[in-house]
Amino acid sequence: MAKELIFGHQNPDTDAIGTAIAYSYLQNKLGYDTEAVALGEANDETKYALNKFGFTAPRVIKTASNEVDAVMLVDHNEPQQSVSDIDKVKVTHVVDHHRIMNFNTADPLYYRAAPVGCTSTIMWQMYNEKEIEIPQDIAGIMLSAIISDTLLLKSPTTTDQDKEAVVSLANIAGVDYKEYGLKMLKAGTNIADKSEEDLIDLDAKSFELNGSNVRVAQINVVDLPEALERKDAFLKAMDEASKREGYDMFMLLITNILDSDSEALVVGSDESKAKFEKAFNAKLSDSEVKLPGVVSRKKQVVPPLTNAFEA
Amino acid sequence: MAKELIFGHQNPDTDAIGTAIAYSYLQNKLGYDTEAVALGEANDETKYALNKFGFTAPRVIKTASNEVDAVMLVDHNEPQQSVSDIDKVKVTHVVDHHRIMNFNTADPLYYRAAPVGCTSTIMWQMYNEKEIEIPQDIAGIMLSAIISDTLLLKSPTTTDQDKEAVVSLANIAGVDYKEYGLKMLKAGTNIADKSEEDLIDLDAKSFELNGSNVRVAQINVVDLPEALERKDAFLKAMDEASKREGYDMFMLLITNILDSDSEALVVGSDESKAKFEKAFNAKLSDSEVKLPGVVSRKKQVVPPLTNAFEA
Repeated sequence: MAKELIFGHQNPDTDAIGTAIAYSYLQNKLGYDTEAVALGEANDETKYALNKFGFTAPRVIKTASNEVDAVMLVDHNEPQQSVSDIDKVKVTHVVDHHRIMNFNTADPLYYRAAPVGCTSTIMWQMYNEKEIEIPQDIAGIMLSAIISDTLLLKSPTTTDQDKEAVVSLANIAGVDYKEYGLKMLKAGTNIADKSEEDLIDLDAKSFELNGSNVRVAQINVVDLPEALERKDAFLKAMDEASKREGYDMFMLLITNILDSDSEALVVGSDESKAKFEKAFNAKLSDSEVKLPGVVSRKKQVVPPLTNAFEA
Repeated sequence: MAKELIFGHQNPDTDAIGTAIAYSYLQNKLGYDTEAVALGEANDETKYALNKFGFTAPRVIKTASNEVDAVMLVDHNEPQQSVSDIDKVKVTHVVDHHRIMNFNTADPLYYRAAPVGCTSTIMWQMYNEKEIEIPQDIAGIMLSAIISDTLLLKSPTTTDQDKEAVVSLANIAGVDYKEYGLKMLKAGTNIADKSEEDLIDLDAKSFELNGSNVRVAQINVVDLPEALERKDAFLKAMDEASKREGYDMFMLLITNILDSDSEALVVGSDESKAKFEKAFNAKLSDSEVKLPGVVSRKKQVVPPLTNAFEA
């Protein structure tokens, strides 16, 4: 069987990288020949998790078709979030927990999606269904992915299935998930030694909303005032990125992981900003607005933006 | 929990109707409130199977949004094969074995697809994963769906998983699958008492191929010469349907289920016919051509047509 690459989305987070590693292990057990790779460097949080469970970061690729004819996707399906030459390879498998958008294939494929908090929760179910034993390190990296995506089970995307998976995986991994989880999340909140350009690209995704190219970035912090001291520099970096990449709107969600509140910074045309304000029923003041309780891009940001841009 | 409708594609076959019934039973066991319906009348083969296992044909609906806010799809995902107001309801679940095309959602959903011969094979796996006991009549209708889609496991779409499912389901249903299967398939081959207009619409699907609207219909027979005596009337009906519905090409695949060969009739522009000939590397003679061994629209017709229309 020809080798296939498995990867998550661009600007990978712990789910994108952790679930790729877990899926590759599972598929290889089932007779496939796969390698988990990544579409970017691991962030600090992911590095902490990889290190904790004894993994090295997956190799970073820029294109896939120079290596393989077929790939498997985790934690994404939208082509603009995938490898740059996704149209030149065949997608044979997808495991994801996002909406399906602009994902078209010529042939039938394996597709497994569920509206749960993390792709690793689906992966945990797949291991159980296939009755493949989960090694301790794989359990640890899947646990880390779920903690990351659900902000320690506090995000509104969290389902009972995520909670079950966390308890089961923490048991196999041999860690106290609350204690470990908070350490891991905090490892991802050190923004002091990173430039604004880097911070707005660490966990950023593009969405085509009714013809508009909308960028939504998110950073996790434990000290919101510290982050907002750099507001002008953030806005400048977002403005420059928008001009360079052609974004119609750029939104940065700065989330305090300790109290699950966020502050949003927004740059874009007056028309885009009006749509943003409509989406969240909130007025921007000097490009900034509080979004109390908003922590999930997928569940609390993209749907209202989609509705506002389509109205 | 609000009621949801479950249905397969337009011009329903035994998979579309049988798997909808089986999925509704499974989901209701899991706590959902669902009803299996159909987007058209059951054909003769499906009626035979429904009758054999004690089911009445599901209620036929033309629209969904007048009844429910949310639906579950089986055996299709492409919007033009679905209910006419699919854009007005939320799709919460899909179980399918086709390519994914033009299927976009605003929110995450349950999506389960695999490149196997029949949707009921995936459904059988889902019952097993959820450890829900399959009643005898549900096993019978799922068995019928797999026999129908795989032409008694002889279609090139057939996988080992389909074969396993057939053996397991036949055992639960208490039938000899070969004997029953041939009787069921033959029940669908009586074309004598149907008009050409009806026959070209019984099992027909539309595909958008690079901007062209291509219709592919299939009928199963046991006596190919009998069917070809009506060739001129078939061509006339296909031509009229094309003008009425705006098809750029209409292809009718007449398949002899006993020897797994087909004869194709084709109407359309010279340009479309040239693409057809390129797709199958075969010359049409008086709008007709033999396609030896071709029995699967999904695996042996749509992919070569897609390639030819996109070249």
